[in-house]
Amino acid sequence: MRVEKKLQEMGLELPNAAAPAGVYVLARRVGNLLYLAGQTAHINGEVLVSGVVGKDLTVEEGQEGARLSALNILSVLKSELGDLDKVRQFVQMIAYVRCTDEFGSYTGVADGASMLLRELYGEKGLAARMTIGTNELPGGSVTEIMTVVEVED
Amino acid sequence: MRVEKKLQEMGLELPNAAAPAGVYVLARRVGNLLYLAGQTAHINGEVLVSGVVGKDLTVEEGQEGARLSALNILSVLKSELGDLDKVRQFVQMIAYVRCTDEFGSYTGVADGASMLLRELYGEKGLAARMTIGTNELPGGSVTEIMTVVEVED
Amino acid sequence: MRVEKKLQEMGLELPNAAAPAGVYVLARRVGNLLYLAGQTAHINGEVLVSGVVGKDLTVEEGQEGARLSALNILSVLKSELGDLDKVRQFVQMIAYVRCTDEFGSYTGVADGASMLLRELYGEKGLAARMTIGTNELPGGSVTEIMTVVEVED
Repeated sequence: MRVEKKLQEMGLELPNAAAPAGVYVLARRVGNLLYLAGQTAHINGEVLVSGVVGKDLTVEEGQEGARLSALNILSVLKSELGDLDKVRQFVQMIAYVRCTDEFGSYTGVADGASMLLRELYGEKGLAARMTIGTNELPGGSVTEIMTVVEVED
Repeated sequence: MRVEKKLQEMGLELPNAAAPAGVYVLARRVGNLLYLAGQTAHINGEVLVSGVVGKDLTVEEGQEGARLSALNILSVLKSELGDLDKVRQFVQMIAYVRCTDEFGSYTGVADGASMLLRELYGEKGLAARMTIGTNELPGGSVTEIMTVVEVED
Repeated sequence: MRVEKKLQEMGLELPNAAAPAGVYVLARRVGNLLYLAGQTAHINGEVLVSGVVGKDLTVEEGQEGARLSALNILSVLKSELGDLDKVRQFVQMIAYVRCTDEFGSYTGVADGASMLLRELYGEKGLAARMTIGTNELPGGSVTEIMTVVEVED
């Protein structure tokens, strides 16, 4: 339980894995790959960081949202795997950030998620990532992040 | 042919698998995974449900678009697999919905696709899903949906 | 080195694989699948084709951006695989294009990437593709493209 220990040392707590916000499942496994549903900046389904980077929110506030998306990802991993140490590596991350039409420097927002995962898993916490600006996300969330993770047998 | 029988009982017909709308293929297989191209709300390439949820369209009208995207996904699966019963489970779904900048409740739109797949396949019709609001989609379609599906040998 | 030879014959040069523009890795491999990070229309991290199709840019100019995204994808493949001939097939492509809210005909933009890959690899250069319009991309780039590629052992 090394990863959970680290989380505790960082003063962070996993949110409860919230029920899906629609007709879907939170995770699907095929072999050693775990495909996770998109996670917004919510606690128990209630969006905590909402708004548009470059208008309502600074990059730092957006990063807080991304970090919360990552905590929800960890929460689903915990409930799927039982132990967060069973993650072999993060493979793919698609990160959406609500931003204004011309705010080209929003990419740092997604780093809020990746920095947390790197602190917990080192280099294997980093995925091949794509960050996209968009006009709207579920519940008005500033971020939504989808991941594919390779896990132990 | 149980799934196709169900479709018939529901009074639904598979559209013809339309030619790709550009320089790409409709599906790629790697082992037991089938990666499908994005499908808009079209019949034979002509977009039937176009517009923006929260401006031109209600959530219910958007769901009709999502359902049509799902029928096109089934159409490609039929032409790739010969038999829709060869689907083992839906793994990943990325659903885009055109909506206004502040219409945070558009996520129900994608349920239009997922509910059809659940009716046909039960729980295994549900994927790890991400729903994203966006300003524009090909041909002005209200929805575009990309899926990864696990299939039988 | 057949593919690189073709590139030379076409008068094209691979850009240097630029460092990631944030906290992520450019590629992750799981078995024979290589997951690549999103690539904008940049050279060495500097976006060369920026703007919005339908407002600042024509479809043809957008295609130039997509082509540059593809060259960066090839660049990462070269640095991961050593030899571009080790690509077995392109599996999945998610292509984002900045465009105005009503420019439904932007899909041709992504063809700029796919046509280059088809010239180099033939049919196996084509992926199951999804093209999405969006309001903003990193650094203001007109395109950002993420791919999954199947590679030789």
